[in-house]
Amino acid sequence: MFDLITMGEAMIRLTPLNFERVVQADTFLAGTSGSELNTAIGAAQLGLKTCWVSRLVDNPIGWRIANTAREHGVDISHILWVSEGRVGLYYYEMGASTRASRVYYDRCHSAMSQLEPGMIDWSGVLSGCRVFHISGITPALSASCAAVTEEVIGAAKQAGCLVSLDINYRAQLWSPGQARECIASLLPQVDILLTTLDDARIVFGLVAEPVAVARKFIDTYGLKVVAITIREAPSVLRHVWQSVAVSNEVACLGERIDLELVDRMGSGDAYTAGFLFGYLTGDLTKAVAYGDAMSALKHSVPGDHPWATLSEVERQVKSRETKIQR
Amino acid sequence: MFDLITMGEAMIRLTPLNFERVVQADTFLAGTSGSELNTAIGAAQLGLKTCWVSRLVDNPIGWRIANTAREHGVDISHILWVSEGRVGLYYYEMGASTRASRVYYDRCHSAMSQLEPGMIDWSGVLSGCRVFHISGITPALSASCAAVTEEVIGAAKQAGCLVSLDINYRAQLWSPGQARECIASLLPQVDILLTTLDDARIVFGLVAEPVAVARKFIDTYGLKVVAITIREAPSVLRHVWQSVAVSNEVACLGERIDLELVDRMGSGDAYTAGFLFGYLTGDLTKAVAYGDAMSALKHSVPGDHPWATLSEVERQVKSRETKIQR
Amino acid sequence: MFDLITMGEAMIRLTPLNFERVVQADTFLAGTSGSELNTAIGAAQLGLKTCWVSRLVDNPIGWRIANTAREHGVDISHILWVSEGRVGLYYYEMGASTRASRVYYDRCHSAMSQLEPGMIDWSGVLSGCRVFHISGITPALSASCAAVTEEVIGAAKQAGCLVSLDINYRAQLWSPGQARECIASLLPQVDILLTTLDDARIVFGLVAEPVAVARKFIDTYGLKVVAITIREAPSVLRHVWQSVAVSNEVACLGERIDLELVDRMGSGDAYTAGFLFGYLTGDLTKAVAYGDAMSALKHSVPGDHPWATLSEVERQVKSRETKIQR
Amino acid sequence: MFDLITMGEAMIRLTPLNFERVVQADTFLAGTSGSELNTAIGAAQLGLKTCWVSRLVDNPIGWRIANTAREHGVDISHILWVSEGRVGLYYYEMGASTRASRVYYDRCHSAMSQLEPGMIDWSGVLSGCRVFHISGITPALSASCAAVTEEVIGAAKQAGCLVSLDINYRAQLWSPGQARECIASLLPQVDILLTTLDDARIVFGLVAEPVAVARKFIDTYGLKVVAITIREAPSVLRHVWQSVAVSNEVACLGERIDLELVDRMGSGDAYTAGFLFGYLTGDLTKAVAYGDAMSALKHSVPGDHPWATLSEVERQVKSRETKIQR
Amino acid sequence: MFDLITMGEAMIRLTPLNFERVVQADTFLAGTSGSELNTAIGAAQLGLKTCWVSRLVDNPIGWRIANTAREHGVDISHILWVSEGRVGLYYYEMGASTRASRVYYDRCHSAMSQLEPGMIDWSGVLSGCRVFHISGITPALSASCAAVTEEVIGAAKQAGCLVSLDINYRAQLWSPGQARECIASLLPQVDILLTTLDDARIVFGLVAEPVAVARKFIDTYGLKVVAITIREAPSVLRHVWQSVAVSNEVACLGERIDLELVDRMGSGDAYTAGFLFGYLTGDLTKAVAYGDAMSALKHSVPGDHPWATLSEVERQVKSRETKIQR
Amino acid sequence: MFDLITMGEAMIRLTPLNFERVVQADTFLAGTSGSELNTAIGAAQLGLKTCWVSRLVDNPIGWRIANTAREHGVDISHILWVSEGRVGLYYYEMGASTRASRVYYDRCHSAMSQLEPGMIDWSGVLSGCRVFHISGITPALSASCAAVTEEVIGAAKQAGCLVSLDINYRAQLWSPGQARECIASLLPQVDILLTTLDDARIVFGLVAEPVAVARKFIDTYGLKVVAITIREAPSVLRHVWQSVAVSNEVACLGERIDLELVDRMGSGDAYTAGFLFGYLTGDLTKAVAYGDAMSALKHSVPGDHPWATLSEVERQVKSRETKIQR
Repeated sequence: MFDLITMGEAMIRLTPLNFERVVQADTFLAGTSGSELNTAIGAAQLGLKTCWVSRLVDNPIGWRIANTAREHGVDISHILWVSEGRVGLYYYEMGASTRASRVYYDRCHSAMSQLEPGMIDWSGVLSGCRVFHISGITPALSASCAAVTEEVIGAAKQAGCLVSLDINYRAQLWSPGQARECIASLLPQVDILLTTLDDARIVFGLVAEPVAVARKFIDTYGLKVVAITIREAPSVLRHVWQSVAVSNEVACLGERIDLELVDRMGSGDAYTAGFLFGYLTGDLTKAVAYGDAMSALKHSVPGDHPWATLSEVERQVKSRETKIQR
Repeated sequence: MFDLITMGEAMIRLTPLNFERVVQADTFLAGTSGSELNTAIGAAQLGLKTCWVSRLVDNPIGWRIANTAREHGVDISHILWVSEGRVGLYYYEMGASTRASRVYYDRCHSAMSQLEPGMIDWSGVLSGCRVFHISGITPALSASCAAVTEEVIGAAKQAGCLVSLDINYRAQLWSPGQARECIASLLPQVDILLTTLDDARIVFGLVAEPVAVARKFIDTYGLKVVAITIREAPSVLRHVWQSVAVSNEVACLGERIDLELVDRMGSGDAYTAGFLFGYLTGDLTKAVAYGDAMSALKHSVPGDHPWATLSEVERQVKSRETKIQR
Repeated sequence: MFDLITMGEAMIRLTPLNFERVVQADTFLAGTSGSELNTAIGAAQLGLKTCWVSRLVDNPIGWRIANTAREHGVDISHILWVSEGRVGLYYYEMGASTRASRVYYDRCHSAMSQLEPGMIDWSGVLSGCRVFHISGITPALSASCAAVTEEVIGAAKQAGCLVSLDINYRAQLWSPGQARECIASLLPQVDILLTTLDDARIVFGLVAEPVAVARKFIDTYGLKVVAITIREAPSVLRHVWQSVAVSNEVACLGERIDLELVDRMGSGDAYTAGFLFGYLTGDLTKAVAYGDAMSALKHSVPGDHPWATLSEVERQVKSRETKIQR
Repeated sequence: MFDLITMGEAMIRLTPLNFERVVQADTFLAGTSGSELNTAIGAAQLGLKTCWVSRLVDNPIGWRIANTAREHGVDISHILWVSEGRVGLYYYEMGASTRASRVYYDRCHSAMSQLEPGMIDWSGVLSGCRVFHISGITPALSASCAAVTEEVIGAAKQAGCLVSLDINYRAQLWSPGQARECIASLLPQVDILLTTLDDARIVFGLVAEPVAVARKFIDTYGLKVVAITIREAPSVLRHVWQSVAVSNEVACLGERIDLELVDRMGSGDAYTAGFLFGYLTGDLTKAVAYGDAMSALKHSVPGDHPWATLSEVERQVKSRETKIQR
Repeated sequence: MFDLITMGEAMIRLTPLNFERVVQADTFLAGTSGSELNTAIGAAQLGLKTCWVSRLVDNPIGWRIANTAREHGVDISHILWVSEGRVGLYYYEMGASTRASRVYYDRCHSAMSQLEPGMIDWSGVLSGCRVFHISGITPALSASCAAVTEEVIGAAKQAGCLVSLDINYRAQLWSPGQARECIASLLPQVDILLTTLDDARIVFGLVAEPVAVARKFIDTYGLKVVAITIREAPSVLRHVWQSVAVSNEVACLGERIDLELVDRMGSGDAYTAGFLFGYLTGDLTKAVAYGDAMSALKHSVPGDHPWATLSEVERQVKSRETKIQR
Repeated sequence: MFDLITMGEAMIRLTPLNFERVVQADTFLAGTSGSELNTAIGAAQLGLKTCWVSRLVDNPIGWRIANTAREHGVDISHILWVSEGRVGLYYYEMGASTRASRVYYDRCHSAMSQLEPGMIDWSGVLSGCRVFHISGITPALSASCAAVTEEVIGAAKQAGCLVSLDINYRAQLWSPGQARECIASLLPQVDILLTTLDDARIVFGLVAEPVAVARKFIDTYGLKVVAITIREAPSVLRHVWQSVAVSNEVACLGERIDLELVDRMGSGDAYTAGFLFGYLTGDLTKAVAYGDAMSALKHSVPGDHPWATLSEVERQVKSRETKIQR
């Protein structure tokens, strides 16, 4: 009886210390990363009962990832464990000045990318679940993953779950055209769409102000809710964040938030976690406020996860503090 | 024959690396921390003969603290060593973006909090001393510490010392009402009061521009000098600092200083150290300038202490450099 | 057959962690540093065939330095290895707030400073080389190094190399008057002069806007090209960079670039590397663009070297990205 | 429906790097530690369904401990969360040569030590559980903890659980006489007693070879099984381990194992975990073999937990490898 | 005109700190590793002109590996750079007590494993070279690598090089039967065979004392020289090393060397480097002595490379020092 | 009124992490080192009033050294501060297996080596002091330091101090012949001679069992007490320690102590500290016992200082513990 189930790949993230470049680093911090896992963890931190489904190799790297999920209270009982294949990884190079941050993937041939339809009994897993969430990364992993995405979204609809999807376009996995074709075919079954303004433009060619973009998605695909996040980047280490959510009835605009970047990885996933929590426990206004708070919080913490608590997010939604609390 | 004697609690400070949250950290940097100790260390760095009085457990944690004092040239011969009890500690969580920095204390039941009147022969300790300084944290530790605070301030007056007090309100130790009652009872014996504009408002309900606040203190309690420090915090990592000192004769306003925060812990104590040094070796203008320079310097250095030298502070008072010196 | 040969001293650089001061640090990061070596490494990263000439002690410290050169593809076959003497070093203290970054040298009595004319067969080394580059640090090391500087520049002219010189004034090595006298005597044989606007003022007393300063150098000393770099420092951690290059025919002004400082050491040398690469493979406009890109990149990377690739610099010259690339 | 439930205090363990002493260390590794938690984690690693019960403060330090339990798959749903009090901690100083390793506790006034009878509904928690395990540390924490120990052991017997107890004498918590009086009063309800040969001597004055000591316990208190672990320490970093388990029917003697000490903390708890697993899934011979393997493994891993897998322990029980596996 | 050319795969090696297990580690030290690269580096450290041939991805991970080769003076001009594929990696888990050290590979689908015959012009590369060396890992990588191995050994013979081969059996890459079949087909063209006594037993089923094993190889395959290394492992952290080399004329037995293991990775490759150096510059006695010295040295240094100098090895061959040199 | 005054050079010691070699290290731990300073610190840890005299540069490196002395309670008021010159340093490379530990000095031209007779008013400094101690390193630094050594030993005798000298031969500073000539000329004024058996052989050509060596010194130079320390080194990381002290009346032989080496630097100086403490507060038997305990303790602690306490040393003298204390 989960509030939220997500499915996707998780990887080891290797991060050099102190702005070092990958080519020069002799030490890497190891973390666990993966869009849908990040969302499950964020939601669990806020108190939702969450489960993350994936396919992992039965070795220390796979165990690390499952342990991380478990550490945050995410259920791992539906992970498929296999003895062959690998767990993907990537290097995250933190930038500054004129050097943008950058990700180098080494994720091919992962056990997850070889997941095939029929391997998981979705009706059993999804039974009684309130929301199923997936990102556009999963269908981009492989043809079989695209098929599983279709399979699981269908099963989720049938099980009466809300279906949530984040476009999360990755240029190293597929082209904008491929992404649009696949995602457009999924959207008719989706209830909640989350995307950055950039992805809406790159993948769907939508160039407009955010509310108009959201309405366009609603009108075209019959979605319940569309949330658009907007990131301005006046410099590599200083960003400005804002989001908007639109339904047939209302459009809610969040506040502009100045960000000092400690680590921006996982901030979109944190937004989704906060948004879904707010939506399930309140309304669209709460969804936007909690999504924004989770994303902003994430930017201040190293690693992919916000390490948030519900009371902390509630406090941040009410007022922002910049002086020390003691 | 000390220029400055301070008394108070010192704690171990545990700081996660690189903006990590306490809940996620696997490594902590250990430092020594304590308002009155910080002030003694800062003053010793500038060349004053200083002594710090406290009550410490005779174990490696207590030794660390005494060693740190000694390393900076602070006299430790009047520390009371006991075999029972504990040394307090706290976790310092460095913030960014919308997450303010935060302190988690674990300081209850410390040996210092169990200090009682009569345990220290104050007339012997204070004989010939020029300034005795204490913060509002000490009386907040326990009823017996409040009694010792009264005892030592009385002894200091009798020994002919100037008495200096920093309100240093800690919401986790007492309420504003409790703080006001206690501190107000001490102020008639105090010569120099230092406080943040925030504490003046929170504890004494004074809402006015700084000079007016200072004059209000002088008028009410017959103080010689009141120094008010002002901190604006446009973001978590960028602050603006300014201070003002007022006596019956003059009001001296320091310059506004833009701060890039490396570590703001101990900056108020560094101000006090610089202020008292400037006051003892010059006038109120020098006190403000040296206090400001010490505080600004402290913000740029990890840990609780500025690691300043007199010549460096003198140079900073004359001009500010932002390009590399080589 | 090298595109570029440089000659100078290299040192071990010891850097405390995380803004610590040298006096407080218990751990130092060790790097390799040296103006002419930095330039050779930057140029090699862009694809030039480069060689660095120096005099090093045959011990692990000397080997480290040679290994670093070799790691980046710089030829080390003309290094003079000696069994006596020392390798210099310095401590680099990273500043913030009102505390400027600072360098503490311990470079006296180095093997390089004892290099004497006649020790190296310059005509053999320089034969077929396109550019010889040296900084004003080398003649400042010792009288014999000044004599070798004269010797090598003469040999370079004779070998048909372009001669490039960066003033690189170091106040701890000589006075402005000494520097001017020496460098002025070298300039008639120099083709390309690079300098900061600050050094032009301090050493040559030139106070004017950059193009005028450059023209003044050209007119006085008959130089082919003069490049002036300009650094504004609104705060210790935020700088603005710009450069201009002037020849008899043209004046090229680069863009203003906002810098978030990770580590500014070696940025002038990176500029020189990019400038010489652009100049050898294009024109003055390319020289300025590549110099600026290399310098900006260097500011974002810890250590003295930009770890650049040609394709990265080419991309940066076309457009600046501040959002993550993945 | 747990296989194993344990109850006790957990603390933060702070460990200096590389044999540093606590008084000199500037960095501490932070870990989670606690005898009964360690046993629960070890058993969960081998596949038992385990639950750990404790009383924790609702702050980042309490969360860390619960997260660690959860990371290893230990159920935390019966933890009592409180807003007042503290989480204990200790410093672990790793020794060498003539300096024995040493622990400095700072555990007084912990939330766990203030647990009182009636706070936990034991019949609900223990229902259906196979084994309840506790160590002698818990009743030593405070009078109320001693009362809770009596309460829970009674409830466990009533619920039909096997009751397991490890003497685990801590000289800093109580005297041998106090320990004996308390534990002797509990033993009539205990089924499985685990102890070191040293504790049997210190607490119960039993000086004999291990099997005789075990039989003495069985005869005096009517125990089902007694396991005795023996540690010889020819040097600080080289120990020899052996254990024996005795029931009314049999006495099983394990092999002597040479240990290279990486970290010996938690090795006794790892033994208990392996022993209980072996006992529940096999017989006394298996219990000894799995206990020994888990303890030996624990000595090779930093921190309090063995990070074992069942297949690894099974492999070690069959044969020992000292050459690299690749 | 190289003294030594080697060919093979190189990988990133990720090593947890201080005996941590891979599953628990949050930090990894990154190194460069690869049997034939290690041998090339070791030989370059002793002064041979060496070249390493491989196939690498043109990204920061590939650059790191090439930079490491270059740092040690190994020629990299014959590396094939490709834009597709990956660089393999592995995790090295250092053991102690009853836990043997262990390697977890993630090396599938590497660019090197996709090297095919015809991709490299071997006659050009090998022209004038004295020794070509390869290990049994290379043909185990893939069918095409096996074909390239055949190709290059043929080319080496034709170019007049001595051919050296180390069996270096890896159980995770192929079975003993597969290894034997492949290597046996190569041995008729091999001049120098190096192997551990274990590999001779596992792959070729030879169970005898080392000299007899060596003679058996010589007799069966017509080899010039066979070197057998013997490792006893009384514990995980204490090994004993010895080697023997046999030709038709002589059998040279090295001394038994007690090893304190800091890091045993690459010790076999270091032996090969020392052996080939000794063989090329002396005789079989020198080969054994230098091979043993290099291997012993390697065990004392973290990472895959011995960081040896010729003078150091010469000194060690003469006498062993266990007291500090200062 | 000091119990002990020592004089000598102190240096920064740079130590790579985890057995890395200097040539490969990117990080160094920085410590303070110097034979006579080490002895002063060790003696202060045991409770003697000690003072260390030296000549230091007034920069952060000099301050670090003085701060370290002060941290341990050593008086620094007689240090000569100068603005010119440098502070020496050395790299300490920890060995294992067949690679002995090694020290690389970079100590030439230090401020201390330029100390000259007349610079310090020795009669003022030494007045009332009980013991003056110096090592043979000081006269080896320079001709002027040799002259100062003569000067201070003369002054010490005149002031009625016991004079203590440790030969401490450094092959990189002078030859055995030079050392013997100098030290032999000092010995007639020395009361207590400490030396290793190795130095007695190397410098004075004495090859005999320790008591005979000691008697030979006593007979030749009229010494009060001679202490000889003996170190066997069966491997790089396992040594055996023993010492003997001889006077005209008695010969006291200490126990053989097996050492697990964490860091052997400063162990001889720790012996001297313990020996002098024991001698001043007891007799020769106590001197040997405390010297041995301090030396053994030092081997277990990183850095040059034992971080001992008197009660710990007293405990060790009574019995040795190898099991954890908790």
